[in-house]
Amino acid sequence: MRDDNSNPQKIPPTMRALQLRAYDGKPESLVLVEKPVPHPGKGQVLVKITATPVNPSDAGFVRGLYAMQKKLPVTPGFEGSGTVVAAGSGVMGRALAGKRVACSAPFDGDGTWAEYMVTSAKMCIPLRKHVSLEQGAMLIVNPMTAWALLDIAKRGGHRAVVQSAAASALGRMIFRLGQRLGITVINIVRRQEQVDLLQALGAKYVLNSSAPDFDEHLHRLSHQLQVSLSLEAVCGEIAGYILRALPKGAKMIVYGAISEQGCQIDPRSLIFDGKRLEGFWLAEWARNKSMFGQIRAAMQVQKLLASDLKTEVRARLPLEDAAKGLQQYAAQMTEGKILLVPHGSKTHTEQF
Amino acid sequence: MRDDNSNPQKIPPTMRALQLRAYDGKPESLVLVEKPVPHPGKGQVLVKITATPVNPSDAGFVRGLYAMQKKLPVTPGFEGSGTVVAAGSGVMGRALAGKRVACSAPFDGDGTWAEYMVTSAKMCIPLRKHVSLEQGAMLIVNPMTAWALLDIAKRGGHRAVVQSAAASALGRMIFRLGQRLGITVINIVRRQEQVDLLQALGAKYVLNSSAPDFDEHLHRLSHQLQVSLSLEAVCGEIAGYILRALPKGAKMIVYGAISEQGCQIDPRSLIFDGKRLEGFWLAEWARNKSMFGQIRAAMQVQKLLASDLKTEVRARLPLEDAAKGLQQYAAQMTEGKILLVPHGSKTHTEQF
Repeated sequence: MRDDNSNPQKIPPTMRALQLRAYDGKPESLVLVEKPVPHPGKGQVLVKITATPVNPSDAGFVRGLYAMQKKLPVTPGFEGSGTVVAAGSGVMGRALAGKRVACSAPFDGDGTWAEYMVTSAKMCIPLRKHVSLEQGAMLIVNPMTAWALLDIAKRGGHRAVVQSAAASALGRMIFRLGQRLGITVINIVRRQEQVDLLQALGAKYVLNSSAPDFDEHLHRLSHQLQVSLSLEAVCGEIAGYILRALPKGAKMIVYGAISEQGCQIDPRSLIFDGKRLEGFWLAEWARNKSMFGQIRAAMQVQKLLASDLKTEVRARLPLEDAAKGLQQYAAQMTEGKILLVPHGSKTHTEQF
Repeated sequence: MRDDNSNPQKIPPTMRALQLRAYDGKPESLVLVEKPVPHPGKGQVLVKITATPVNPSDAGFVRGLYAMQKKLPVTPGFEGSGTVVAAGSGVMGRALAGKRVACSAPFDGDGTWAEYMVTSAKMCIPLRKHVSLEQGAMLIVNPMTAWALLDIAKRGGHRAVVQSAAASALGRMIFRLGQRLGITVINIVRRQEQVDLLQALGAKYVLNSSAPDFDEHLHRLSHQLQVSLSLEAVCGEIAGYILRALPKGAKMIVYGAISEQGCQIDPRSLIFDGKRLEGFWLAEWARNKSMFGQIRAAMQVQKLLASDLKTEVRARLPLEDAAKGLQQYAAQMTEGKILLVPHGSKTHTEQF
């Protein structure tokens, strides 16, 4: 994929964008439309989108399972990368003009699955020179989350943590970042191939939650390693099993719910073992950081984007194949990201 | 019932005690036996038990559903009252000799459902003059818990709380103590009779969780009153409904699980609404209090034992009727406590 910065200011009157028309997960509810390119208002920028991934949050969003439902019709896509080709009034926006950025969608409007997106200048992170637009497209949701969760672990004095969904892109980042920071990570996966995969990547502690003696294993290992924090992305029954197995006083931070089920928590874990349950949301975490803290995090994450926080890409698809991309992603979530490439032609972008 | 303090030192060689032989909840697994009266060791006292209630924790314990399972056979009963008739070595125990006390069972041995019990002197609270042994028998599990929960609410700056199981003995104490402390309480019950009951007692906010619009009502009311704390004693699905309805940032403290089910928590409540889940256990709470704090709490609770923290008694049964008492209790938990009276004869104690 080219980092195409030629004539960024030449903005066409209309663009192609995906439009979600119902929160039912049906392929026909996600439609490619031609619509006017929006204009940035005060404090906003217009980003020409180079690449935008299909994340678990997107898969949940199009099915109405995400926390917020935007007013329909709406363009999905929570993160992407591109070039700032226009800015409304305001210092921050103008400072970003012409810059390559990673960007998040606004909370209440159209997202990244389009050729252009208007968002707040605050939702953009300028990319460092060595970071490609492709890796930049996947900077925020996974790498920033991994970094934030390990930052919480470090600041909380947790020296050993357990994580579920460890074979996911985010799970692998957490495991690698943990190694770098000297935080021991017990990795929980659901299948033997995932055990093999993580062990091949150098993970020392990998448990298969489908194994009959999983509970006992986790109990023994987590007590031996004195695990005091659990990073939970699956929910359902497994969340309760994990919390029950951990040493007394352990805290579980829920940051995802891949199972799409509630967390089934044994009250005894709370009452008699002093365990606690909280949530993590990147947007809220960032809001509570100072501007300096946010910039520092963004710079550190970009430094690690080629190593610990690298994302493998499995396929690059044009916008018209988004529904196919969602299906491929749902069928196999651990084999690398599917990227949408709004300005790429179908023939040159599809690579399996 | 008499406060019988005559000849407290005349200790017989054997006593009658209930013995649990299996954690299966079957009446035949709870047997009345004749066994030697135990001797207090260092730091321990021997209490001649006057009265001991059937609490939800006992009902759970005999069925193996309580957090701890003691080694069988064992005498159940977590709290009671009586007179200290012997003490082992140690200052505290000797200071209690001859005193009327409320007492808790040791964590790892026989409990209160017997004519005599040995426990740590630390597990005894001397009763003030105006407190009867009957009310003293029900001093710890309910009144102390209500006091501790409201103490947590007060110290945490929570000005409005919601509680489930509000018609239970403990629920009514929480509601009355809240009134005294100026903490607004939304009371959740499961049946219309319980709504009527609490309203007759002066409760302003009572919601029926079986009503079709319960969720909406709770959402509206809890936002209007700015509820920031939930005291949860039921668990199951209802815990998740309650947490979801509360304003952002609310904390749920689980102190019981009458439904005998796990808490089904919507991950979105945790992730996007910043809500949290913790547990409360009286024993742990007391352990974290200073000796002074414990004494202060015990004195304050006793002051309120005839008013806000009063327990109604529905029946007084001899030990041989414990199984019947458990059944009666399970069938109807909100109509007053069932007390076991180890030294009472069957004929003079049964009063319906």
